[in-house]
Order: sequence, then structure tokens, then C-alpha cells
Amino acid sequence: MRVDELHHPTGRVLVVVCDKGEEPISMIGGALHRHALRAGRVTAVGGFREADVGWFDPERDDYRRIPVREQVEVLSLLGDVAARDGEPVLHAHAVLGRSDGSTVGGHLLRAQVWPTLEVIVTEVAPELAKRVDPETGLALIGDPRR
Amino acid sequence: MRVDELHHPTGRVLVVVCDKGEEPISMIGGALHRHALRAGRVTAVGGFREADVGWFDPERDDYRRIPVREQVEVLSLLGDVAARDGEPVLHAHAVLGRSDGSTVGGHLLRAQVWPTLEVIVTEVAPELAKRVDPETGLALIGDPRR
Amino acid sequence: MRVDELHHPTGRVLVVVCDKGEEPISMIGGALHRHALRAGRVTAVGGFREADVGWFDPERDDYRRIPVREQVEVLSLLGDVAARDGEPVLHAHAVLGRSDGSTVGGHLLRAQVWPTLEVIVTEVAPELAKRVDPETGLALIGDPRR
Repeated sequence: MRVDELHHPTGRVLVVVCDKGEEPISMIGGALHRHALRAGRVTAVGGFREADVGWFDPERDDYRRIPVREQVEVLSLLGDVAARDGEPVLHAHAVLGRSDGSTVGGHLLRAQVWPTLEVIVTEVAPELAKRVDPETGLALIGDPRR
Repeated sequence: MRVDELHHPTGRVLVVVCDKGEEPISMIGGALHRHALRAGRVTAVGGFREADVGWFDPERDDYRRIPVREQVEVLSLLGDVAARDGEPVLHAHAVLGRSDGSTVGGHLLRAQVWPTLEVIVTEVAPELAKRVDPETGLALIGDPRR
Repeated sequence: MRVDELHHPTGRVLVVVCDKGEEPISMIGGALHRHALRAGRVTAVGGFREADVGWFDPERDDYRRIPVREQVEVLSLLGDVAARDGEPVLHAHAVLGRSDGSTVGGHLLRAQVWPTLEVIVTEVAPELAKRVDPETGLALIGDPRR
């Protein structure tokens, strides 16, 4: 499976600013749903009071959860939006910076924002479609012709 | 406070290439000012000879300065542009890579470029407006209706 | 040398999804060549089974190779595309996340994807041109007027 195809910007850019204490995955997901934005690029910077990130364990076909229980800078939140069964799915990875500048990161599972998270989503079309990969059980962006 | 609103690309993309010895925050800021670019997404890669990054300390409501005094790859420089009192303000976080591949990062306070920093800013409209958050004293992107 | 100029999105967005075992630098490079996409911003997230990243050593004017021989999350793959002698050249840096959340990164030299790498390239115009920097021997984005 390989996708290598041209898409187009739709002219929609969604800006989501999460406030203190808010959970960004559900906030961004809700905004994507409300605006029916099903394909795009996601970037964000800001800060978290705490977060859980994940590393996908090929032995267990599941994420190993890595808890981060301290105030961190969101150095990079990068990802994409694709559709599964017509609903937008956010796939976001994060690099977090501790008080000494050391970093920790993974697939972003959940977080608590503090003091802000500034998210920019730029839409592309046509829709990017996810399908379930039989080997891992993960929903991956796939070739719609297969 | 929460912003969840649609913006549009304006069709302007600003490319700033910083050369050896230049300070990127002031260089990018100057270019944003010259082109009156007040809202957008910023990404960059390149290298720094040295840098100061920051971690925002909630106890002191100020950045703790983390000096990086060695040649590093700029693995990720990610951020946004918003307006404060009509002037563009750059908010950029950086992940820096040392000679052994270990990383250090934070809010980018200042740096010295070597050998290059390739910056791409894509503008969106309408303007993203910053307001001062009373709790932290930080200028955060806010809801213009509040 | 300093570039500070306005470009425009061309309306082309290239989505490349790399599958298990594929080498992303050559895959993305091939897609850029096929679509004659010579200037743009690149972002990606996903996973690698292994990778080689590099740190540019100013003493030797060459990359020091940092081997990563374990399953890692691609927390951030960020970069740009510019043209050298009319051919698209990808410049990508990566931050990779290990099973304990620790990170390693550098200039992305090569990798083996697992289970996916989701790449988005947004084109800008006019072309960004690279020239060889006499001091380092690196091809850097330069001012076409010089």
C-alpha cells in the first residue's frame, strides 16, 4: 500500500485555542467534527500541565502509555486529520520540554493544557481515508483503490 | 476563553533564510513587520551555533532560561504569528539536536544561526489577536469577542 | 546572504503515505520528482523500525551519522523542498521517540518505515533555489540575485 496523490487546499484554516485545564484531543476533535473538516495538517505550540503520550509496541499491537506529570512546554504538536467511517480522526504526535530543557514525547493520548495551546489546522481535499491495517489493528491512511 | 473559528489562507507565503551568525527571532520579526504579516503558521529547520530556550515557570510567571552552548541541528522550529496592538508577534518553540542525537528544547528566546535557518510562514486571515492573560502576564491568542 | 521574499501557494498538496519497510527519503524524493514539485513545506508523523540521523560537524564539514536501531515514533518530521539544478531536494529533520518517551533526532539520512509514515507536502511558488555554500559544501537555499 502506498499513496502518492495530489490534494488541494480548500481555503479553510481552523484555529483552535485551548484554555487552561482543557483536554486538547477532545477539543480539537470536537472542532473538526463541528466544521466537518476531514483531511488536513495540524500544528500547535503551547504548554501542558500534564500529559499521557504513547509508544506503539509492535509485540503487543498496542500503545505503551508514558505518563508526564509535570509542567511542560509543547515544543511540537504535529499531525494530520483523516476520515474513518466519515468521521474526522486526529493523529497527533508531541514533543514536550521539561524545566531543564530535556524532552519527552510520543503519540498524544491525552493532556491538560496550561496556560494555552494554539492549534492551526489547514484543510486539504479530497478526503484522506483511513482503513484498518490487519497486522497492527491501527487505522492507517490507505489507498482508497485497495 | 476558547477560540474555534475558521480562517483563510491569504495566498502569501513568506520565506526567510537566515545566514551564519544571524539572530532568527529578530530576523523573522523584522520580515513579518516589513510585510505586515500578522497571523500565520511558522516552521523552520536548519542549525544554530548556540541558543537560549525557555521553560515557563508557573511559580514565577516567567521563563526559566536554558542556555545551549554548542552546535545543534534545529530539528523543529514550530509556531505561530498573532498580533498585539497591531504588531506581529512570533511565538516559536524549538527542538534542538546535539552531536550525539540527544535533544534539548523550549520556547525560543534567541539564537545564533549556523549555517542556515530556512523559515516558511504561511499567512491566514483574519488576524489572530493576542490579549494579556491576567494570571500569567503572557500575551495569549484570545477570543476577540471577550 | 539573506532571503526574505513572498511566495504563493500553488494549490498543490502532495500526500505520500509510506508503508511498512519503505525508505522515506527516496519515496518522498521520487514523488516530488514525479510531480515536479520543487518548493514547499514538508511535515510527517508515523513510525520507524530504524533510522540514521545526522549532526553536521563544523570541524569536518560533514554529517556525523547517529544510528537508531529500535522501533521509534516519528514525533516530528519537518522540512522543506528546494531545487538544485532543477531537481527537487528534500531537507528533512526528525525527532524520534523511544519506548520510554526519550527522544533522539537529527537530519534525516535514511529510515525504514513501520507501520506507516503520513507525509504532507504543500507547494509554494516561485521555486526556492539552492546553491552550494563554499564554506561548508552544503547546498543551502540562497538568494537567486546573488
